[in-house]
Amino acid sequence: MNDVIKLLTSHRSIRKFESREMPDGLLTELIRAGQGAATSSHIQAYSVMRVTDMAKREQLVELTGGQGYVASCSEFLVFCADMKRPLEAAERTGEEDVISGMTEQLLVATVDVSLVAQNVAIAAESEGLGICYIGGIRNNPQAVSDLLDLPTHVYPVFGMCIGYPAHDPDVKPRLPVEAVLKENHYSDDSEQVAAFDQTMQTYYQGRKGGNKDTDWSHNLTPLFTQKLRPHMREFLIEKGFKMQ
Amino acid sequence: MNDVIKLLTSHRSIRKFESREMPDGLLTELIRAGQGAATSSHIQAYSVMRVTDMAKREQLVELTGGQGYVASCSEFLVFCADMKRPLEAAERTGEEDVISGMTEQLLVATVDVSLVAQNVAIAAESEGLGICYIGGIRNNPQAVSDLLDLPTHVYPVFGMCIGYPAHDPDVKPRLPVEAVLKENHYSDDSEQVAAFDQTMQTYYQGRKGGNKDTDWSHNLTPLFTQKLRPHMREFLIEKGFKMQ
Repeated sequence: MNDVIKLLTSHRSIRKFESREMPDGLLTELIRAGQGAATSSHIQAYSVMRVTDMAKREQLVELTGGQGYVASCSEFLVFCADMKRPLEAAERTGEEDVISGMTEQLLVATVDVSLVAQNVAIAAESEGLGICYIGGIRNNPQAVSDLLDLPTHVYPVFGMCIGYPAHDPDVKPRLPVEAVLKENHYSDDSEQVAAFDQTMQTYYQGRKGGNKDTDWSHNLTPLFTQKLRPHMREFLIEKGFKMQ
Repeated sequence: MNDVIKLLTSHRSIRKFESREMPDGLLTELIRAGQGAATSSHIQAYSVMRVTDMAKREQLVELTGGQGYVASCSEFLVFCADMKRPLEAAERTGEEDVISGMTEQLLVATVDVSLVAQNVAIAAESEGLGICYIGGIRNNPQAVSDLLDLPTHVYPVFGMCIGYPAHDPDVKPRLPVEAVLKENHYSDDSEQVAAFDQTMQTYYQGRKGGNKDTDWSHNLTPLFTQKLRPHMREFLIEKGFKMQ
């Protein structure tokens, strides 16, 4: 296993950070590394909001459900799917009837920004930094958009905390490769899931920093017993991602 | 700049591959590296279809618009957003009224699988392999689903060719960091886009393997003058991703 693959398999979310700034220029280097990711038709349908205004950071702590590390990390970024830039570029070529709001455009922009973010995460971890994705940015996406002046055709997909780790959590187990990698046709994986439930039960009982008595299946069930973030549909439509 | 960041910034899509197999065990290592990526609430809402059946590969060449490297690469993977596994896991805990079809679930699964894929891409490139994302998998997503027996709550997001590079294309320029990285509020970037149009005009005129007279804005305009992949909305709904 080479050093890069070792790095990729040793990720864990960091939620406690040293009170320490990143050296000048490093954030730019991380974003450039992010931009190195593949992009659909070279469209680069993303923008990254760097939040340095501490009053805004504190508001983001509240808007993401009280996650204090959104304020205490060295850099907090909000990764946005951005169809505004390419749409307006197309308009500036003289094209009068540009088409927005397609479901495909939502997918393209969401994938584009995700690839960038994952490169930023890897780049940060390669520099000894820790990161945590903040999906909670979608708890209140309209308020986040208002706070950061996000225009139509731009939506906040997730946040990311970056900073120097002040704790050392375990790496969480993943589903067996045999469950997620399938050959030529989609095959049943319920046996591997049952085995993984055992793995996770053991993990949750023994892990550093907070034991609990559950397994993978029981842990994720609450995600499906409520309408999770039911505002997302209307929010996206309002933002011009009409899913047509 | 460390070696990992150098790797991340040197990506270019590879579309010509040596006729050569990958060593035993390497694909599994790449997938494990992929699984190391962060996952929303540990849901791991993805499956990866490895296509070794050459008849299926040939059909995928056609279905993705005649991209021959889908057949000639060492490994061809179809990355799928997979809500079936977690939904059924929740059901097996005894929960009778699990909720599917939320827009949020489409986003979670699409982001999850994108982060995995980008880790696989980086891992592959760290081993001297080249990759190419195949968004064309969404040209005919229903036919792809039929070919690979993809069930409800699973949709093919993109493909990926992996293999040993048999050409050495240039790294394509990216938008200036100043355009995509914004501080505290969303700011106009039309000046940087204009400069980038110049950069791309020069690039397209001088690049190895195919010059053309265009720039970034003109190159992407056709994406907005037609309803791109207009079948995606109905396809996703049919597959249980109802965007509710």
